[in-house]
Amino acid sequence: MRPSGRELNEMRAVSIETGFTKHAEGSALIKIGDTHVLCTATIEDRVPPFIKGSGLGWVTAEYGMLPRATNTRMRRESTAGKQGGRTVEIQRLIGRSLRAGVDRVALGERQITVDCDVLQADGGTRCASITGGWIALRLAVNKLMKAGDVISDPLVDPVAAISCGIYAGQPVMDLDYPEDSEAGVDGNFIMTGTKRLIEVQMSAEGSTFSRDQMNQLMDLAEKGVGELVTAQRAATA
Amino acid sequence: MRPSGRELNEMRAVSIETGFTKHAEGSALIKIGDTHVLCTATIEDRVPPFIKGSGLGWVTAEYGMLPRATNTRMRRESTAGKQGGRTVEIQRLIGRSLRAGVDRVALGERQITVDCDVLQADGGTRCASITGGWIALRLAVNKLMKAGDVISDPLVDPVAAISCGIYAGQPVMDLDYPEDSEAGVDGNFIMTGTKRLIEVQMSAEGSTFSRDQMNQLMDLAEKGVGELVTAQRAATA
Amino acid sequence: MRPSGRELNEMRAVSIETGFTKHAEGSALIKIGDTHVLCTATIEDRVPPFIKGSGLGWVTAEYGMLPRATNTRMRRESTAGKQGGRTVEIQRLIGRSLRAGVDRVALGERQITVDCDVLQADGGTRCASITGGWIALRLAVNKLMKAGDVISDPLVDPVAAISCGIYAGQPVMDLDYPEDSEAGVDGNFIMTGTKRLIEVQMSAEGSTFSRDQMNQLMDLAEKGVGELVTAQRAATA
Amino acid sequence: MRPSGRELNEMRAVSIETGFTKHAEGSALIKIGDTHVLCTATIEDRVPPFIKGSGLGWVTAEYGMLPRATNTRMRRESTAGKQGGRTVEIQRLIGRSLRAGVDRVALGERQITVDCDVLQADGGTRCASITGGWIALRLAVNKLMKAGDVISDPLVDPVAAISCGIYAGQPVMDLDYPEDSEAGVDGNFIMTGTKRLIEVQMSAEGSTFSRDQMNQLMDLAEKGVGELVTAQRAATA
Amino acid sequence: MRPSGRELNEMRAVSIETGFTKHAEGSALIKIGDTHVLCTATIEDRVPPFIKGSGLGWVTAEYGMLPRATNTRMRRESTAGKQGGRTVEIQRLIGRSLRAGVDRVALGERQITVDCDVLQADGGTRCASITGGWIALRLAVNKLMKAGDVISDPLVDPVAAISCGIYAGQPVMDLDYPEDSEAGVDGNFIMTGTKRLIEVQMSAEGSTFSRDQMNQLMDLAEKGVGELVTAQRAATA
Amino acid sequence: MRPSGRELNEMRAVSIETGFTKHAEGSALIKIGDTHVLCTATIEDRVPPFIKGSGLGWVTAEYGMLPRATNTRMRRESTAGKQGGRTVEIQRLIGRSLRAGVDRVALGERQITVDCDVLQADGGTRCASITGGWIALRLAVNKLMKAGDVISDPLVDPVAAISCGIYAGQPVMDLDYPEDSEAGVDGNFIMTGTKRLIEVQMSAEGSTFSRDQMNQLMDLAEKGVGELVTAQRAATA
Repeated sequence: MRPSGRELNEMRAVSIETGFTKHAEGSALIKIGDTHVLCTATIEDRVPPFIKGSGLGWVTAEYGMLPRATNTRMRRESTAGKQGGRTVEIQRLIGRSLRAGVDRVALGERQITVDCDVLQADGGTRCASITGGWIALRLAVNKLMKAGDVISDPLVDPVAAISCGIYAGQPVMDLDYPEDSEAGVDGNFIMTGTKRLIEVQMSAEGSTFSRDQMNQLMDLAEKGVGELVTAQRAATA
Repeated sequence: MRPSGRELNEMRAVSIETGFTKHAEGSALIKIGDTHVLCTATIEDRVPPFIKGSGLGWVTAEYGMLPRATNTRMRRESTAGKQGGRTVEIQRLIGRSLRAGVDRVALGERQITVDCDVLQADGGTRCASITGGWIALRLAVNKLMKAGDVISDPLVDPVAAISCGIYAGQPVMDLDYPEDSEAGVDGNFIMTGTKRLIEVQMSAEGSTFSRDQMNQLMDLAEKGVGELVTAQRAATA
Repeated sequence: MRPSGRELNEMRAVSIETGFTKHAEGSALIKIGDTHVLCTATIEDRVPPFIKGSGLGWVTAEYGMLPRATNTRMRRESTAGKQGGRTVEIQRLIGRSLRAGVDRVALGERQITVDCDVLQADGGTRCASITGGWIALRLAVNKLMKAGDVISDPLVDPVAAISCGIYAGQPVMDLDYPEDSEAGVDGNFIMTGTKRLIEVQMSAEGSTFSRDQMNQLMDLAEKGVGELVTAQRAATA
Repeated sequence: MRPSGRELNEMRAVSIETGFTKHAEGSALIKIGDTHVLCTATIEDRVPPFIKGSGLGWVTAEYGMLPRATNTRMRRESTAGKQGGRTVEIQRLIGRSLRAGVDRVALGERQITVDCDVLQADGGTRCASITGGWIALRLAVNKLMKAGDVISDPLVDPVAAISCGIYAGQPVMDLDYPEDSEAGVDGNFIMTGTKRLIEVQMSAEGSTFSRDQMNQLMDLAEKGVGELVTAQRAATA
Repeated sequence: MRPSGRELNEMRAVSIETGFTKHAEGSALIKIGDTHVLCTATIEDRVPPFIKGSGLGWVTAEYGMLPRATNTRMRRESTAGKQGGRTVEIQRLIGRSLRAGVDRVALGERQITVDCDVLQADGGTRCASITGGWIALRLAVNKLMKAGDVISDPLVDPVAAISCGIYAGQPVMDLDYPEDSEAGVDGNFIMTGTKRLIEVQMSAEGSTFSRDQMNQLMDLAEKGVGELVTAQRAATA
Repeated sequence: MRPSGRELNEMRAVSIETGFTKHAEGSALIKIGDTHVLCTATIEDRVPPFIKGSGLGWVTAEYGMLPRATNTRMRRESTAGKQGGRTVEIQRLIGRSLRAGVDRVALGERQITVDCDVLQADGGTRCASITGGWIALRLAVNKLMKAGDVISDPLVDPVAAISCGIYAGQPVMDLDYPEDSEAGVDGNFIMTGTKRLIEVQMSAEGSTFSRDQMNQLMDLAEKGVGELVTAQRAATA
């Protein structure tokens, strides 16, 4: 039995509020249960030096957590003087994941920065960031297309992410914090709307897992991403 | 005429949503027009070294701004490797202001950290942070009193803040960003519910002002703080 | 009774030694009692990016304290890896204050950096820095005018600063360290020679003050700034 | 055809020199083709604060690259003032992977730090670090067991890692740098000697992959890890 | 001919003002020509961890330069975020040099920190810092002896330093900045009052020198240190 | 008697393996007894700003130590956030020393960076770095000359370095770690193949030395450098 009473293959309630802030070209507050992430997308004309003049676009991401998004207060990274290892790892994942779903030729030589800031955390913040980040990206690209700055849609297939893991010996979908902190195996699955894989990360902390278990988690993930993509489409229709 | 069409002595719409996040001992999302600040209060049993064993409590504050809270994206302070000078100045002000309204003997030897994170900025973020921060503090202290950890109320008089300035030659209350960026004189007035002064900061950028103008701004500020305290009381009743 | 035996409205002895160092375009060692600050002004042809090509000049300031300027040795900020919050706050104040007294069109597109380094501290270092910094600035501008690089004097009205506060229930002028560390209310008043206000900062640490008290401090400040401007004029005549 | 002329499922030549440095409790220079990593294991009696008094041991890892390990010189991270995001990500992976193969009760309350420093890089440095790091760890633990400080062997099953990816449309084992920089999909597979999975990371840069391709890479990885474990056993016999 | 018109073996005018600041246990402003260094000595009861409980004392030094001590303004090290390589090298030299002249048993388990801050630079700042630093140290130790905290004098033999170099092909004593920036060979000689050597550093920038030239510089240095020690004794008598 | 049983004027065994890594334009692993340093030379077309357009070349050096090169593990400088004072001092010395042996006109406007990374330390790492660094430099320059990019040899005279000191009252050559940690006087002597002096550093830690002792160390150093230059020539012939 899961602490939340959910079925093994049941996701938490998903809610998406687009336009949560007014300055960003795209913004959304995504809530996956008690995990709340504010995602904004910023369009800039400059691109990183290594693609200058290539005609290709770039999508990058940054991730942060408010000090009291968690059960006990965490030190603010700006006062610590640097982003922690976990933060760096997560924002690199978000950036790679979103880029995999972008036709960079169609985007044209511009950069979109997706900021994912966790207002409240209850497990699965990196997956919520990818799923919500794609919505902010979608809204920003819509603005470019409406203005005629981009002609052919660079976002052909949505990108969403779900965590699945082995909790109490059972494969479960969408781990919340109580599950996540106990799970022997924890995986993040980033896929497109057509179930193409972008990134798969499965990790055992202090244990190991079999190839069979890996396949069970993959099955759960395909179901979960399908539901998230439906929610993304509804929010950005 | 003000860009927003407001009267010279008219504040923007104030909205306060308490309990905006679930982990913090006190939390509120305060909206002063388009300036939105998420304030949380965290209670900890430890105090800073310089008051250890004194029996006195401590209240401190930290301030941050999400990268796209503003019209153009700002660099995240955690990647810059330090808090900027403006941030440091503001969070020191918030901490001093809230402390002035606290009976530190009544609070007892514990620390409350008030985090003020700007989700959306349109001028007056430091004043909104103080006003909203006091609400988070109030809610956290209520919890301490309910639990019997604190007997006599350490928050005898509310603390609120308003900015007033000289815009287009006229004294105006509660400057929004278009006014703030043009104002020749800009002041922040932090007072208690009984109109006792906690901190007064008046500053001319590239100009000067007279003692008469200073008094006009003081008059406006007294009116504004009165309205904010009414809103604070309503939100925490 | 004040610890120093001074009258309530009596300033400490003021001494100004111009040309204290030889490399700077302007320099002065200002002594306000036992507070000794070395101020230098450096002229550079470059200006900050945001005013490049505008024809306007810029004045900025930096502040530092030698490790043993104080009663107990403080850690050197260069080994701490950053300027502390107090330092940042003070140097921003010095810069803003001096800029308010400068006709930036008359100065022309050049930058003057005023460095204020406290050799010995006994309270009121930020006010001494502003008063002494203006002298260094005056001397540097004199050099520009003598060389014909600047035609019309950009420093029409001197800028000086004085701290006043409530000590032992009484309004007093020019707090020294023993008073400053006990004062319930502490204010810094930056004005021009014609008593126009540039910046007013009044702050209560752990208490509050009335509008009447604020006016008493203002009265003291006007007297004090008058005396400081007389000394500035004598030193730079 | 692979640039190196290798078969699709062929690993580069593996060479392991144990005892490469004399101070460390365990050390090895591992060469996987032209990728050379010096791994050392350091035993310390202290453990991280969060397990103090638990009786459990800890294994952690750090990763570095000499500035000219690569084709063009990279900036030294110590002069950059921090470890880059890639470094942090890699060393966290090495630490997690090695820990998964350790019986922390049997190790007892001590910490082993595995340093992996790349002397020469030609792709696959993180996998070589894990495979070589386990050898250094094995040697250090042997020393503990010989001294009687550890009774039951905490390293029941070796840990090794191999990268596999899709290069030119084909699944290939053990990518070298020319392949790695072209591969559309790149995976790192960390397993035990009994083919239990510890961590699986598959990532598409600018593309996607199917579940079938994922399974092909898994098959290659199982073969590769088998060969590496044989080499580890030979080197530490 | 030397730019200053001095003889080859002639030192600049030396002036020493003790008690230049009031808080430090010892302080002196030393002027070697136009090189002016403020030296303070701070006594603390704590010692570095590596000698705790040994009964031995410690002497350490820190070095700084005001931004406009030099001909063109240098960036403040506190804003650069770290001490530069030259600063670190110099302060380590000062510390080692002063320690060599201290009987650490006689000093007892306490630390004296000597801060050397260059107010105005014209070559030879590290040597002036050592010579002036010893005076501050002497005054601080006098205070300890007067108070009876130290019985036997830990400063048996003064420590002083002089730079000598090859300028325009000639060995010269006490290089000023114009000479220093042209000299092919530059040496710093730290000795005691009895001409025992503490540290000798001779360095050729873009050239080399012979053992004969080295001996000529040694001869000059012995003469110079003799004169400096006479000045030290006069100032601290 | 020396701990190693060596004669007073006997150097440790010297071994040099050129081409130790494949990417660098020049590389060598130098072993002086148990001190092992990997030296690489990187040629770049850019030069530092202060010589841009001068036609002159530049040689610079960086130094590092692997965390477990020493008897107890040292903190990695990249995680400490900066290079330590000792590191900075050493790499500046290596750079100066190598530059002194370079005809910068003949080198032409390009930069060669010599990285010296200590894989295993047993005293004398800075001297081994200079001696080995010159070999890497020699090999890189050979490549430039072979390619016709440099016509006249910029390395006319080899550069090598040896440490000599007073151990147990006796002057000894090439101190190893057990000697170095006990030596009262320690010197580093950097010379050319023709015995011209480049840099001489003699330092007493907690003691002093006489001019006679200095001359004895100089004699030893001349012998030692002669042997090292023979080894350099053999390795690069």
